Amino acid sequence: MKCGEIKHLFKLIKDNNPLVHHITNQVTINDCANVTLAIGASPVMADYTREVEEIVSKADALLLNLGTFNEERYQSMKVAGKKANQLGIPIVFDPVGVGASSFRKNKALELLKEIDICIIRGNYAEVSSLVGLGGKAKGVDSVNLEESSNDVIKIAKLVATAFDSIVVISGEIDVVTNGQRACIVENGDEWLSKISGTGCASGSLIASFSAVTNDYYLAAVAGISTMGVCGERAKKALEKADGLGTYRVKLMDQLSSMDGDTWGREVRIYEVEYG
Amino acid sequence: MKCGEIKHLFKLIKDNNPLVHHITNQVTINDCANVTLAIGASPVMADYTREVEEIVSKADALLLNLGTFNEERYQSMKVAGKKANQLGIPIVFDPVGVGASSFRKNKALELLKEIDICIIRGNYAEVSSLVGLGGKAKGVDSVNLEESSNDVIKIAKLVATAFDSIVVISGEIDVVTNGQRACIVENGDEWLSKISGTGCASGSLIASFSAVTNDYYLAAVAGISTMGVCGERAKKALEKADGLGTYRVKLMDQLSSMDGDTWGREVRIYEVEYG
Amino acid sequence: MKCGEIKHLFKLIKDNNPLVHHITNQVTINDCANVTLAIGASPVMADYTREVEEIVSKADALLLNLGTFNEERYQSMKVAGKKANQLGIPIVFDPVGVGASSFRKNKALELLKEIDICIIRGNYAEVSSLVGLGGKAKGVDSVNLEESSNDVIKIAKLVATAFDSIVVISGEIDVVTNGQRACIVENGDEWLSKISGTGCASGSLIASFSAVTNDYYLAAVAGISTMGVCGERAKKALEKADGLGTYRVKLMDQLSSMDGDTWGREVRIYEVEYG
Repeated sequence: MKCGEIKHLFKLIKDNNPLVHHITNQVTINDCANVTLAIGASPVMADYTREVEEIVSKADALLLNLGTFNEERYQSMKVAGKKANQLGIPIVFDPVGVGASSFRKNKALELLKEIDICIIRGNYAEVSSLVGLGGKAKGVDSVNLEESSNDVIKIAKLVATAFDSIVVISGEIDVVTNGQRACIVENGDEWLSKISGTGCASGSLIASFSAVTNDYYLAAVAGISTMGVCGERAKKALEKADGLGTYRVKLMDQLSSMDGDTWGREVRIYEVEYG
Repeated sequence: MKCGEIKHLFKLIKDNNPLVHHITNQVTINDCANVTLAIGASPVMADYTREVEEIVSKADALLLNLGTFNEERYQSMKVAGKKANQLGIPIVFDPVGVGASSFRKNKALELLKEIDICIIRGNYAEVSSLVGLGGKAKGVDSVNLEESSNDVIKIAKLVATAFDSIVVISGEIDVVTNGQRACIVENGDEWLSKISGTGCASGSLIASFSAVTNDYYLAAVAGISTMGVCGERAKKALEKADGLGTYRVKLMDQLSSMDGDTWGREVRIYEVEYG
Repeated sequence: MKCGEIKHLFKLIKDNNPLVHHITNQVTINDCANVTLAIGASPVMADYTREVEEIVSKADALLLNLGTFNEERYQSMKVAGKKANQLGIPIVFDPVGVGASSFRKNKALELLKEIDICIIRGNYAEVSSLVGLGGKAKGVDSVNLEESSNDVIKIAKLVATAFDSIVVISGEIDVVTNGQRACIVENGDEWLSKISGTGCASGSLIASFSAVTNDYYLAAVAGISTMGVCGERAKKALEKADGLGTYRVKLMDQLSSMDGDTWGREVRIYEVEYG
């Protein structure tokens, strides 16, 4: 893993302050905006069909998140996505709850067909849903994997190949693959799955990194591992009486003070040989 | 009051991790998601008409909240509500700001006619509005009751009988009734009314409890009193310079560490004889 | 500057608890509600076309914020705005990201033509966009001014005259003008621009003050400087390891405990002679 290069990306984000256009859900939209700011990028959250083309044209990355999805937002994603493709702006796709309804699943597959996605990020149930395999889905927050990591890697590679995209599956461990090579990120904390929005905000981090490098595999690893590292550091910063409220605050504290050196010291990434 | 049974419900939620489908407003949707997670349940917030039927089918409870209401969300509530009724999934109804516009009031009454609601939760103004009595309404946060608790109980029983539902009126004290028996929950803190979303999040708590018991009276008491107990504990945890920002964080801390034993020690519930 | 009068407004808000109707964006809607509560006013956030007329009729101020804008919200703003004008209810206008799309800009100008706005609040890029001058716009959070304060004052006066309105331009320093007189507010902190929603919430503060005085110039100064003073105080309250998460919490603490005396001791306002 090119950890030295990733370390440099933190500085690149802060120096270039890239604009990350989000078309995202109403539940965690504020978390996504704040996490994008915390890492040093600039969020813009417009989702109206008649303005997304103009707005994405000024952006450095586009994030499409399927939470609280509907027909109108689908149209906006299609329009913005096609424009982003035209202009070479990287697109991160977060198929939140895609197994929860056939509407969502059909539209997700249409988007994947009509636009080129650089990076897909989801939990095991969501990502496996995209290739018609039913990972156990319950709501949108089921990140506990009973599946062995080998199975997760296999599914990730399958999806990466099917859609010619980097795939990130987040869970107790996170898997990143481009279809050939794969790696595992061990960082993380159980409490990340107990507060709303950490999955969506990982997407914002990945999109922020994808805005400052053409190596989208690195961007995916950088984004997902930053959430894991910060999730661990936030837990360590808690005192005994603290619960999920304080944890969420400390997580933002960590995200806003994260840099390449701290990341480099604390990240635990392993390349995977499994083929 | 069957406090022993309620104490057991906390553990049931954590063990069963029930899925609570919210069709709710844009202001406090994130608070509702986080409070649902904090108590140990799983939130899903879909509100698009074409997918709510499928999504509610997998849920253990349905919460309908009228904040930032519109025609589309009304349709989604009707569709989801009918499906929930068919499948025996309990529905909690929170008529936020129902006195604020005739559109909202008419649609609320239509929903109450077309679907069977297990539990109605609102402040005095909202609940009395449902039977054409004008409680003093100002915005959606007017929980200070000048009315005597006897009047509040009378209105609550009237509404419970009119809609064949459990009714919770929250305020300085909270009243719960099924039309015959009633009780008063004394727990709470003035500051709960000074932060946005504690009312809506009480609805999420009630819905989470209704997902693990068929005794909806108990579920209503459990949910509303949990918010009261945690509101008191959060206030005690403050230091002198702390204000509403820290209070909101401490409230989430308390909600996420609440259990049956703590609740049992601190709750103050009185059965009411008044007929 | 009539600082004595402004000091009195804090108490007036707490005593009268004015209702501030927001038609605003989905990103920061919760922050706006909480800041309105923190200062002692009451928020109502309805944006559905069929109910805004009725709701604004009960309000003491109306805030129109262009974030996550669309055709439907434009219609609601027009309807609510006309009604507010009829009833003499003051309107605060926050043209968030108005330079980001031609749709947003055209609709903003239509609103400014069709309804009488008391106070316009935005950053330099947004406000200068309203008179066809392209301030450097990047997303919605670009508040760093390279422009000299004289240029900012000149643009502010131009916009104030063009739309017969008080104009607030927020940034490293804030400028308030009615087209003739102008003043500069020096309070503030760099971190205010690193968390989402402080600009929008300044609008909520200004609207809350405009609900308790007819002197909208004073209301604008009071609202924008309150955010600046609290932003400074929140920074001073931080400990070494704290980041943006804690800062956001401390900001709410400060807003909820702010009063006229504290404001009077810490505000730094200068009248401007420049004509």
